[in-house]
Amino acid sequence: MDKNEEKTQVEEQEQDQVVNPWQVSSKGKIDYDKLIDQFGCQRLDTSLIDRVQRLTGHPAHVFLRRGVFFAHRDFGEILDAYERGENFYLYTGRGPSSEALHLGHLVPFMFTKYLQDAFKVPLVIQLTDDEKCMWKNLSIEESQRLARENAKDIIACGFDITKTFIFSDFDYVGGAFYKNMVKVAKCVTYNKVVGIFGFTGEDHIGKVSFPPVQAVPSFPSSFPHLFSGKDHLRCLIPCAIDQDPYFRMTRDVAPRIGYHKPALIESLFFPALQGETGKMSATDASSAIYVTDSGKVIKDKVNKYAFSGGRETIELHRKLGANLEVDIPVKYLSFFLDDDAELERIKMEYGAGRMLTGEVKQILTRVLTEMVERHQRARAAVTDEMVDAFMAVRPLPDMFN
Amino acid sequence: MDKNEEKTQVEEQEQDQVVNPWQVSSKGKIDYDKLIDQFGCQRLDTSLIDRVQRLTGHPAHVFLRRGVFFAHRDFGEILDAYERGENFYLYTGRGPSSEALHLGHLVPFMFTKYLQDAFKVPLVIQLTDDEKCMWKNLSIEESQRLARENAKDIIACGFDITKTFIFSDFDYVGGAFYKNMVKVAKCVTYNKVVGIFGFTGEDHIGKVSFPPVQAVPSFPSSFPHLFSGKDHLRCLIPCAIDQDPYFRMTRDVAPRIGYHKPALIESLFFPALQGETGKMSATDASSAIYVTDSGKVIKDKVNKYAFSGGRETIELHRKLGANLEVDIPVKYLSFFLDDDAELERIKMEYGAGRMLTGEVKQILTRVLTEMVERHQRARAAVTDEMVDAFMAVRPLPDMFN
Repeated sequence: MDKNEEKTQVEEQEQDQVVNPWQVSSKGKIDYDKLIDQFGCQRLDTSLIDRVQRLTGHPAHVFLRRGVFFAHRDFGEILDAYERGENFYLYTGRGPSSEALHLGHLVPFMFTKYLQDAFKVPLVIQLTDDEKCMWKNLSIEESQRLARENAKDIIACGFDITKTFIFSDFDYVGGAFYKNMVKVAKCVTYNKVVGIFGFTGEDHIGKVSFPPVQAVPSFPSSFPHLFSGKDHLRCLIPCAIDQDPYFRMTRDVAPRIGYHKPALIESLFFPALQGETGKMSATDASSAIYVTDSGKVIKDKVNKYAFSGGRETIELHRKLGANLEVDIPVKYLSFFLDDDAELERIKMEYGAGRMLTGEVKQILTRVLTEMVERHQRARAAVTDEMVDAFMAVRPLPDMFN
Repeated sequence: MDKNEEKTQVEEQEQDQVVNPWQVSSKGKIDYDKLIDQFGCQRLDTSLIDRVQRLTGHPAHVFLRRGVFFAHRDFGEILDAYERGENFYLYTGRGPSSEALHLGHLVPFMFTKYLQDAFKVPLVIQLTDDEKCMWKNLSIEESQRLARENAKDIIACGFDITKTFIFSDFDYVGGAFYKNMVKVAKCVTYNKVVGIFGFTGEDHIGKVSFPPVQAVPSFPSSFPHLFSGKDHLRCLIPCAIDQDPYFRMTRDVAPRIGYHKPALIESLFFPALQGETGKMSATDASSAIYVTDSGKVIKDKVNKYAFSGGRETIELHRKLGANLEVDIPVKYLSFFLDDDAELERIKMEYGAGRMLTGEVKQILTRVLTEMVERHQRARAAVTDEMVDAFMAVRPLPDMFN
């Protein structure tokens, strides 16, 4: 096979699976091993997970035990530093493009809360209302309103107000943050962002301008009210792996402007009810369970849409057992059913054909309803004053305790 | 001649003269008529100058009488609105790339002060320290220091502190200003900025991100502390014509985001001592008179470098007279010698060969020394507190009186 043919094949393979911050699609299941190779990150192995448990005294989160957070960049260096007694901070974010979050949106926040509790470190959460205004053609006012609504859902995940700063770009861009944006922008050519993000000449320059906005929360000096004089504080970013391109760019730039490269801990995509070919869509309501869904809606969605690995007839099912590889109820349970023994039992029984799809969907409905109702109660308790308090530009005096 | 040849010729002609915000060069004299055609602005005719005098009761500034400000966009509409009793505001700026300003840098500020005095209107002055940090590869700290130093020279031009807000981008970008940057960026494609500014794929994305920063001071809502609730206030921008590309882009976007197009009044370039092939360079000290030059330095520079239209021998000069078209001392006097009769006398006598280059240079030295020494005295009186006061984000309560 000559060189040209090879290239064409590689291009075709790459097109089988498109993963960037705005598009996640594949012809079959996402090939995460390939993604790790393509992006150049590392697989999160059990030795790192064991270290988390040992260093923090907290048991590994279900998302660690089950490989939901499966890849990383320099997470070992964060743990090394922590072991030496050095602090770090967490940075995550959300593009506020929808009124209500779905379960996939909760994944990084649930995990970030675990990390905050386990490591006792400060956290900055960026709401990219400017990005959504530019990509989704929302008005500034609507983007800002959605940012505040989403902030309530984020706060409902239980973050510690004494350690957490939530900000929206439209509110916070300026000053030290803008200076870092300029520093980053100086280090990245247009050709480079085209290579990373696939922009075209017909894309507006707002898109080209945005990557530095998402990059600079990785640098402590972007938050002088929090980290003044701590320019060498390390940053750990928990996120879904589709955000990796932003931070590849950021890591490339960081040493050139005098900062540590941010470390990353990256998750799989939470699959759509219809099956694992991408991440859930915020705009197709039947593809996802929303945190606003009632128990009845959850039950209906699970029963109606959740792709089943069960067989066509009861007889066949009893004989062959369920195909767990493609079964969405089992997949969802592996995210949200904390009890390892119970999950193993379900997989065993269901895989052996002794348990039917209906029973598994019933268990999933119960687990999700409990989780969503707990979230709804927590969110109902979040007042506008609390949002203001989390978003106030203020010091966090006890952030490292 | 076929189509292709035609295109090549046009391209070659265009390359004879390059005018954009970062480069002004031509093989011979700048062809301003061609520039007006190319940019699509209008020539400033005497009827508009007469209207300025009639509406303001102020005599026309020497820069109007002598055609230094020679082109405009919608200046007539500003005068129409003013005549109807509507207000407007002025916007000008400077990229702080050098310690000291040269005479060419003073031209827009001297004229802007005249407009402020004549129309009694507020003025915003943008110091693009971010731009210079990105284009000149200055550190942020150095760009900010130069911005403050330049602010002192600008204040020394005599602006009314009750009507003038000076800001640096590193200080001021954020909030309503950033929102307008995003609004503008959404309306401009990458291909468009390449067409206007000639960026290449190897340029960094800071350059691509910058045009909206210079655009948005054209919109009153970028200054909520000044123009809150006055979204339909018109804006007039006095500037050298090399800044026109920024405002072509701005005018294209303005109606799409609900604002008036800013009006422009545009000047020729102030020529280098060596002759009229471009504008003076801030980096070649022998090409320009600086506001920090002593009387002796001015005298030396004028005598040594100012390109003369005088003839090779006194005999030839007496016979043919000076070539006033290329004579820099006469050109400089046409900018800065306010006395029309005296200028006419000099041109008459010198053009007829009765006056020698040395005499004209002596007059120019006197005029420039007086002007520069006056500037130096004014600048010496500008304290850091005054800079802080001009740059404070504050209302200007009497700005329209």
